[in-house]
Amino acid sequence: LLRAVPGLRTMASEAETSKYQYETLKVTTEPNHIFHVELNRPNKRNAMNKSFWREMVLCFQAIAKDTDCRVVVISGAGKMFTSGIDLLDLGSDFLQPQEDDPARIAWNLRKKISEYQETFSVIEKCSKPVIVAVHNACIGGGVDLISACDIRFCTQDAWFQVKEVDVGLAADVGTLQRLPKIIRSQSLVNELAFTARKMMSDEAKRCGLVSRVFPDKESLLSAAFDLASDIASKSPVAVQGTKVNLVYSRDHSVQESLDFMACWNMSMLQSQDVLKSAQAAMEKKQPKDVTFSKL
Amino acid sequence: LLRAVPGLRTMASEAETSKYQYETLKVTTEPNHIFHVELNRPNKRNAMNKSFWREMVLCFQAIAKDTDCRVVVISGAGKMFTSGIDLLDLGSDFLQPQEDDPARIAWNLRKKISEYQETFSVIEKCSKPVIVAVHNACIGGGVDLISACDIRFCTQDAWFQVKEVDVGLAADVGTLQRLPKIIRSQSLVNELAFTARKMMSDEAKRCGLVSRVFPDKESLLSAAFDLASDIASKSPVAVQGTKVNLVYSRDHSVQESLDFMACWNMSMLQSQDVLKSAQAAMEKKQPKDVTFSKL
Amino acid sequence: LLRAVPGLRTMASEAETSKYQYETLKVTTEPNHIFHVELNRPNKRNAMNKSFWREMVLCFQAIAKDTDCRVVVISGAGKMFTSGIDLLDLGSDFLQPQEDDPARIAWNLRKKISEYQETFSVIEKCSKPVIVAVHNACIGGGVDLISACDIRFCTQDAWFQVKEVDVGLAADVGTLQRLPKIIRSQSLVNELAFTARKMMSDEAKRCGLVSRVFPDKESLLSAAFDLASDIASKSPVAVQGTKVNLVYSRDHSVQESLDFMACWNMSMLQSQDVLKSAQAAMEKKQPKDVTFSKL
Amino acid sequence: LLRAVPGLRTMASEAETSKYQYETLKVTTEPNHIFHVELNRPNKRNAMNKSFWREMVLCFQAIAKDTDCRVVVISGAGKMFTSGIDLLDLGSDFLQPQEDDPARIAWNLRKKISEYQETFSVIEKCSKPVIVAVHNACIGGGVDLISACDIRFCTQDAWFQVKEVDVGLAADVGTLQRLPKIIRSQSLVNELAFTARKMMSDEAKRCGLVSRVFPDKESLLSAAFDLASDIASKSPVAVQGTKVNLVYSRDHSVQESLDFMACWNMSMLQSQDVLKSAQAAMEKKQPKDVTFSKL
Amino acid sequence: LLRAVPGLRTMASEAETSKYQYETLKVTTEPNHIFHVELNRPNKRNAMNKSFWREMVLCFQAIAKDTDCRVVVISGAGKMFTSGIDLLDLGSDFLQPQEDDPARIAWNLRKKISEYQETFSVIEKCSKPVIVAVHNACIGGGVDLISACDIRFCTQDAWFQVKEVDVGLAADVGTLQRLPKIIRSQSLVNELAFTARKMMSDEAKRCGLVSRVFPDKESLLSAAFDLASDIASKSPVAVQGTKVNLVYSRDHSVQESLDFMACWNMSMLQSQDVLKSAQAAMEKKQPKDVTFSKL
Amino acid sequence: LLRAVPGLRTMASEAETSKYQYETLKVTTEPNHIFHVELNRPNKRNAMNKSFWREMVLCFQAIAKDTDCRVVVISGAGKMFTSGIDLLDLGSDFLQPQEDDPARIAWNLRKKISEYQETFSVIEKCSKPVIVAVHNACIGGGVDLISACDIRFCTQDAWFQVKEVDVGLAADVGTLQRLPKIIRSQSLVNELAFTARKMMSDEAKRCGLVSRVFPDKESLLSAAFDLASDIASKSPVAVQGTKVNLVYSRDHSVQESLDFMACWNMSMLQSQDVLKSAQAAMEKKQPKDVTFSKL
Repeated sequence: LLRAVPGLRTMASEAETSKYQYETLKVTTEPNHIFHVELNRPNKRNAMNKSFWREMVLCFQAIAKDTDCRVVVISGAGKMFTSGIDLLDLGSDFLQPQEDDPARIAWNLRKKISEYQETFSVIEKCSKPVIVAVHNACIGGGVDLISACDIRFCTQDAWFQVKEVDVGLAADVGTLQRLPKIIRSQSLVNELAFTARKMMSDEAKRCGLVSRVFPDKESLLSAAFDLASDIASKSPVAVQGTKVNLVYSRDHSVQESLDFMACWNMSMLQSQDVLKSAQAAMEKKQPKDVTFSKL
Repeated sequence: LLRAVPGLRTMASEAETSKYQYETLKVTTEPNHIFHVELNRPNKRNAMNKSFWREMVLCFQAIAKDTDCRVVVISGAGKMFTSGIDLLDLGSDFLQPQEDDPARIAWNLRKKISEYQETFSVIEKCSKPVIVAVHNACIGGGVDLISACDIRFCTQDAWFQVKEVDVGLAADVGTLQRLPKIIRSQSLVNELAFTARKMMSDEAKRCGLVSRVFPDKESLLSAAFDLASDIASKSPVAVQGTKVNLVYSRDHSVQESLDFMACWNMSMLQSQDVLKSAQAAMEKKQPKDVTFSKL
Repeated sequence: LLRAVPGLRTMASEAETSKYQYETLKVTTEPNHIFHVELNRPNKRNAMNKSFWREMVLCFQAIAKDTDCRVVVISGAGKMFTSGIDLLDLGSDFLQPQEDDPARIAWNLRKKISEYQETFSVIEKCSKPVIVAVHNACIGGGVDLISACDIRFCTQDAWFQVKEVDVGLAADVGTLQRLPKIIRSQSLVNELAFTARKMMSDEAKRCGLVSRVFPDKESLLSAAFDLASDIASKSPVAVQGTKVNLVYSRDHSVQESLDFMACWNMSMLQSQDVLKSAQAAMEKKQPKDVTFSKL
Repeated sequence: LLRAVPGLRTMASEAETSKYQYETLKVTTEPNHIFHVELNRPNKRNAMNKSFWREMVLCFQAIAKDTDCRVVVISGAGKMFTSGIDLLDLGSDFLQPQEDDPARIAWNLRKKISEYQETFSVIEKCSKPVIVAVHNACIGGGVDLISACDIRFCTQDAWFQVKEVDVGLAADVGTLQRLPKIIRSQSLVNELAFTARKMMSDEAKRCGLVSRVFPDKESLLSAAFDLASDIASKSPVAVQGTKVNLVYSRDHSVQESLDFMACWNMSMLQSQDVLKSAQAAMEKKQPKDVTFSKL
Repeated sequence: LLRAVPGLRTMASEAETSKYQYETLKVTTEPNHIFHVELNRPNKRNAMNKSFWREMVLCFQAIAKDTDCRVVVISGAGKMFTSGIDLLDLGSDFLQPQEDDPARIAWNLRKKISEYQETFSVIEKCSKPVIVAVHNACIGGGVDLISACDIRFCTQDAWFQVKEVDVGLAADVGTLQRLPKIIRSQSLVNELAFTARKMMSDEAKRCGLVSRVFPDKESLLSAAFDLASDIASKSPVAVQGTKVNLVYSRDHSVQESLDFMACWNMSMLQSQDVLKSAQAAMEKKQPKDVTFSKL
Repeated sequence: LLRAVPGLRTMASEAETSKYQYETLKVTTEPNHIFHVELNRPNKRNAMNKSFWREMVLCFQAIAKDTDCRVVVISGAGKMFTSGIDLLDLGSDFLQPQEDDPARIAWNLRKKISEYQETFSVIEKCSKPVIVAVHNACIGGGVDLISACDIRFCTQDAWFQVKEVDVGLAADVGTLQRLPKIIRSQSLVNELAFTARKMMSDEAKRCGLVSRVFPDKESLLSAAFDLASDIASKSPVAVQGTKVNLVYSRDHSVQESLDFMACWNMSMLQSQDVLKSAQAAMEKKQPKDVTFSKL
């Protein structure tokens, strides 16, 4: 398996990403249909400013439609993953309302919150698997972000903090909604959300928030790209159908989910990928030995 | 942080709790807006008799409305947390029906069961965080009780037993409904519920039922009150909004929960607590350095 | 406790099982109302062929109605638990459609998938607890099968593989629907489903998929039958009501589940089993000292 | 059939209703286990003041438990059914908040709204059929009230008005939630709610809001009590089980509702009432010839 | 349009129906892929005995799979549609339990009720449109039956009666679950269910229970078969997909239903029927001028 | 009340609508914050071509945010409301797939269907009331469109046709999902969807699809604008909150809807509009005498 070498990756992909130009995100296309999305305000500890909240939506809507992409890896540039929302930049939106009628302020806040929720929901609506690689701090909005990803890896020095309660609010862009469905020691989730205490990487591993821990950022990224390459070698019809149905299952009863699955696969089982894969299996080949069409 | 000293606590609060007078519960108000609710039939191993089932409802309905309370700690007086339902006292309600028509017996049983379910649901409906500190035995109804709490700590010698199957019935006041959403090794939940075997503190920790284990009751309570003080120092708008939305999220899809959250925070983000907290954060202060109005 | 001795078991039950005659399953009735269902194509690595998918439904529908059965143990005959679907045998159903209209092919595929889903849903619909004992390989359809069981034990050498993605399809007979509600490190479930990598017994234990691991098949089966005997000694009204309500709770909100439970127990609390059990408890006897009527 | 004669009714029941003493409601027990609840502020056009919102809850909680009651008739004393909320009396609760933090005002408003919602939800939670007899005006809160009743009759001169939009708010105690499930010309419901226009009795009949229209209040009440007597002559197990399941069905899918029903009737079919009724049916008798125990 | 002539119909189909041989049902295959199912115990007023409850399931399961059938018409042989359940025949199942433990009686009753519910749910699960033609009496179980059909026609002399309350029970095989979603004057549904009064054909038309009324049985059947022929001339992919999605929509939110529909039509829009129909439409032809493959 | 005069309307609004420039829609701003959206391909019978499906989304997303707009009226320019989808123009999207793998074709079709569903869902997501005025033909996609509107009026000569079954497909952009929740004679909805027969204005009125019928287009539009003016004179906080909650209620249980409503109004009751309206009510003024801020 020809795996991506970090050093080579950046160079190779300069040309193709012209449409993925953002202020706060750096998007690199890697070999094997892998896209690398970096939070890219390293001097600001990757704090999430207004541009970020908007650009994430644009970026993932583009990725969702981009048939060149099969898997996404998210990581943070610089010293930490992210320090969370950029209070200074966002303050004006949330703290200095233009109206003086509480109902109209509320009306506008609701719209704004819904927009900000969409910033991370796009990750979930994109049917391509998203692996997030966290190093050092992952604070506040960072936890909202990684909760919407599919697979979470981190470094030994990583730590996680549901920070919102410390700025006087209940977390409203995903953490309270997704975290309890991800790690499920309810007692622990509650403790984290009520106290804003830091959770270190070992506890994050034990409780299931992350599935693997690595000594440093280099080995973390290397493993994330290995995993991405492995997934990218499979049939995209199989992989992306799997994501769509896993997300559906989380929010529905088993019977509803089985019914949706039957409806889904009545098309997807007609795929050439099934024939190709079945034949490869009979011939003792691996998925990576098969060429699948784009999706 | 000026933390509550157990010895001082009881004294200080004599006067204020005149309305919290119960036969089976002892309610003490602690510094920092913390209420301590003790199961208080130590000579009866805190067995849950008829008074208990009624008084819990009264107690938590009062606490829910009491703006002096921000966090609750529940513990058991005496040698164990609780031996569960008081079969002798409750038997007459459930085992000696007044009717001879099976339909009318059923009608009355359903009412009674619903009432008993409410005994623990009030904990969940109360928007203040409830920490439960378990030592020694937590049997039958005890598991129903702690399943409705938000955070669970226990001592090394604590053990847990879903006892109902041994008295010929399926647990009907919360365990079968909440436990699988709390610990989630479904295989383990099933085993506990089918066999009524004891689960020791270490297994309880591993499976996520409790989030921390302590050597003895004293260190347990000390840690529970520390945690309570920490939570009580935060904005009550933030903390209680967090509880309301965590409970909502457990029972709804992610999208439904996000929608409810946006509707919730369109009011709550207008809080002075957000401004105060944001300002404190900018000045590198802690939430405990800020004074929040009652809620 | 008079426990079943593996050596004796097979012999004793020859006669009674005449109605449980299958090609791919071997059903043995054990002492204490325990039924043993073995995947029984050892020469074919217990691959799931067309007969298997049909016979499982017949078998569990019969068991569901059989008042002689209180608990079921499923295991695999031969060297491994199961290698999953028998591609050669099933290929014709899924890969060689009789139609040439994509809509009509889809129509038939949907019917077929629903039938195959039923093969494992019958385990869940059967109100008797089902313990599955896995040794060596549990691949593809095997994971779908065990996801529908109530309690999972395995041997040290057991491994699990969500294989479907490697044959070009999203798993459609239960894994994607049930697994996330069983083990709940969402990150891990996603990784397994996207990569088809093997998960070994120790990881399976840590993440909660199995609740116990044993050194070899003999000790595995011995423990499974011990557990089965223990459960079988309890009131079947209590045990089976527990299963019905645990399955219900998984798919409903806590309040819905409490309402259903109240409706359920308004009948079931009228059981003689409750009286018998309560009386035994007062007399310090165990459930196994009580004789319960069949159910 | 000995039917209640309006003239006699009031007298006969003086004694029994000592516990049903309210400021804003007049409760009379009629022959045949019928209770008559009158909105009783005729000089104030039965405007709904603070006492009313509280007393309705007390009244219907008492009726729900009162085995002497099998059916309830609600009507309005004086010239009209009701003019809706008493703005002057309620204004202080909703228009003059005690707090100055918008979040804390919101917190208290939510509690208050929930309490007011309960005022009409109690009608639905009471398993006894509630017939409402409307004459002349039924405005604002009146529509919320009748939407929670089971059967609606009115006089020729009756009219209905979803008034809330005219006082600057979306109706929040039941109309927007229940009306669309009652009459279901969605286009008409929307029109009524957006415009606050009056709907006359004939349109109310055509759209299904009321099932019968009568020339005057006397014939209206006479018919309502006739219907009540008829229902009261049936098995209360059958009638009240019917209400519980009709309310359940409104809010659930058909399959969920069938499952709940099966769970419900597994007790209720064991009733003596079924045997008595079946025997009566064989002997060509009517339900009213059978004596059913209280429920 | 070559329409079915009642006189000819019976004859033509003798041979093909050999597999549709029942005691209580007469199944005739008509021209144009129409199946006619008659309740066929005219001497017993088509009372629903044990055989009927079983045979309906067999019959509609067979029809569901029979690609020769595109539409079903149900009617009653003899003087009336049906007098409902056959109390004498069913009494033993429901009134004379084999057990003496109320819990075990309940257990068996629940199973039995679920089976009887399935008798009418099969109509809904069968994706072919089912038109029911009612003449004269339609009582008790008859209302349950027609509630599960797709289109209801009746004669002028038809009447409907939700009879169950008169035999001491809440209707448990579909009426309370489906009727409120069909006619939706909630007030009227409640009245019918609480009183067991007869509803005549004109009221049935007005409230939407039936969509057309005819002077006599002959014209009724003629119209039903005309409608059936019309539907049978359309693409079965379109017609049966429409039924599946209409049933789905009834039980789900609009958004859920749109999502399911998109998943459904991603296969079905690939149908040759769409191409054939589109081409016919361009050529100003009717669906009946097109030949569609079986489904 | 100064009502909009059709003749004057067009002129007055030229300037303001520069941003509402579309090929297939004509948007005019009327007095009193009313927007008029006309289907504007009169020479093509307002057939829905690709531009239309895209422009509706843009148009209603803009209107949703436009605080100058309080109510929308939709009508059709020229001889009829709409002939439905433009088969010739859309054919390429749906009938000539770019792929040859059925799974990939399905994948793209699902995306396309979801986009087309959004074309009408935007009407529902826009919180401003939408009145649709239908004259002459309303076919296929036209029924999907009007099903997503809030209030439906039509002319005497209007007719409605669920056309999709005649082009070989189940209607997939809203009709099957919304129509049964709008008119609710289930029998009639099914008949219309299975047969594609025309429904005339009188039947549309009787079944509740439209709430009023007018002799000609002029009186229709006049009445629609009168209604719009009336609604536009009310508090926009009240009106739009009403729409949001009516849509929510349609898709949720009564209890869920009440909970959401309480959460909603905890902000909205703080509105100045409530104070203004309450004061006006006390002074016997109408909403139209009050000036409400934009929303």
